[in-house]
Amino acid sequence: MVMLKDDERLDYLLAENLRIIQSPSVFSFSLDAVLLANFAYLPIQKGNIIDLCSGNGVIPLLISNRTKASIKGIEIQERLYDMAIRSIEFNQLGEQIQMIHGDIKQMPEKFGQAKFDVVTCNPPYFSTPPKGEKNSNEHLAIARHEILCTLEDAIIVSSKLLRQGGKAAFVHRPGRLLDILTLMRKHRIEPKRLRFVYPKQGKEANTILVEGIKDGNIDLKVLPPLYIYNEDNQYTNEVKEILFGKEEENANSKKLP
Amino acid sequence: MVMLKDDERLDYLLAENLRIIQSPSVFSFSLDAVLLANFAYLPIQKGNIIDLCSGNGVIPLLISNRTKASIKGIEIQERLYDMAIRSIEFNQLGEQIQMIHGDIKQMPEKFGQAKFDVVTCNPPYFSTPPKGEKNSNEHLAIARHEILCTLEDAIIVSSKLLRQGGKAAFVHRPGRLLDILTLMRKHRIEPKRLRFVYPKQGKEANTILVEGIKDGNIDLKVLPPLYIYNEDNQYTNEVKEILFGKEEENANSKKLP
Repeated sequence: MVMLKDDERLDYLLAENLRIIQSPSVFSFSLDAVLLANFAYLPIQKGNIIDLCSGNGVIPLLISNRTKASIKGIEIQERLYDMAIRSIEFNQLGEQIQMIHGDIKQMPEKFGQAKFDVVTCNPPYFSTPPKGEKNSNEHLAIARHEILCTLEDAIIVSSKLLRQGGKAAFVHRPGRLLDILTLMRKHRIEPKRLRFVYPKQGKEANTILVEGIKDGNIDLKVLPPLYIYNEDNQYTNEVKEILFGKEEENANSKKLP
Repeated sequence: MVMLKDDERLDYLLAENLRIIQSPSVFSFSLDAVLLANFAYLPIQKGNIIDLCSGNGVIPLLISNRTKASIKGIEIQERLYDMAIRSIEFNQLGEQIQMIHGDIKQMPEKFGQAKFDVVTCNPPYFSTPPKGEKNSNEHLAIARHEILCTLEDAIIVSSKLLRQGGKAAFVHRPGRLLDILTLMRKHRIEPKRLRFVYPKQGKEANTILVEGIKDGNIDLKVLPPLYIYNEDNQYTNEVKEILFGKEEENANSKKLP
């Protein structure tokens, strides 16, 4: 049983393993969030994971499938937090995932420093909202633009929350590559794994996935590229696996972001 | 007519267009230099180009095939400078290419600031020479290790030599990605185009190509990946074109670096 509000839908995640509440007019998760959840290192048996800027909770939900660690998700917008809460309840994941309605900048004080093994964050990408957008959909504006949380805020908070040797994974746009790498190093999260996501072969990258280690050594690896679509404009096999798991025969029946 | 010394050979460059003197025991150019020469933006009809850390002159020779601009090459090691001089003479490129035997750090004073449209540089990659290597081949040690020229030296010199809006292209290793991008921005060469080179599909990148613009806007594009070998361990078509030009039928008869 789940209460859906307004135009909310109960969409599938990872084939039929999970369901998530979203709304075309308020907020739907992006492929980027799915890629980040897949990219991030996770401890399997135990540990503490925190996801910043959680939106409707897509990353906590997805990573719960890969780890038994305790997962916290932080979301500042009550409308999205409320969607996340109901999705977690629907999936009976309340013991593993705890959503917190609040500002990420308050979390180091709330939880204490160096308490987490892994931080994930799909932060707002754009520094200034284009005219009109903020009015037309405030939820989307806050999620997409650095209105309540800048990239540096997210990295500072991540660094404070992480224990030494803990890992932080972010997703962002290539235009901010230098910013994100520089800010990570500045705040003691040394970049270690970098992966570029290309819409298809022959195109420029449109997304970056980066993981760093708190107080890690300098040693950056650039992983093989990830292509989203093949030449026939279908998802590549790698993306199908990320979206639906390994059972490709189920792929056709699933809702996509 | 060309005078070859010791174990020097007169190898082909770009199919039969050019010849270059190299020596297995002293110095042979690398694939990286060829990739950089191909990657760099060049003015076609006129302009001033300078190549730093030129070694045996491979980059000036290669880019002379793509531009009518005046090209200078700087090499600190007399033995390599001497190879470059003789290659330029053999190819009758003395009007277009001028080699200078000297330290790149003296070039801004020698030529004046902001005099060049394009700088290329394949700098030494390694910060400390492994034990023994320096003694066993001093030419190679200087070319490979930051003994006479650090990455930051190369970038500072490039920035001084470049006019506003001029372009600098570098090749380096992924482990130094953050360093090179940070140093470029620090010295006013804003990174604009970045390309990762992968030995083959599914492997981590082992080379980066990056181009920046003196006092350019922040706007970094990540180009499609470049693969060196295909699944049969043959050069990919793109690399064949870079190495040999478009006439693939000539490929088999050419010497490779």
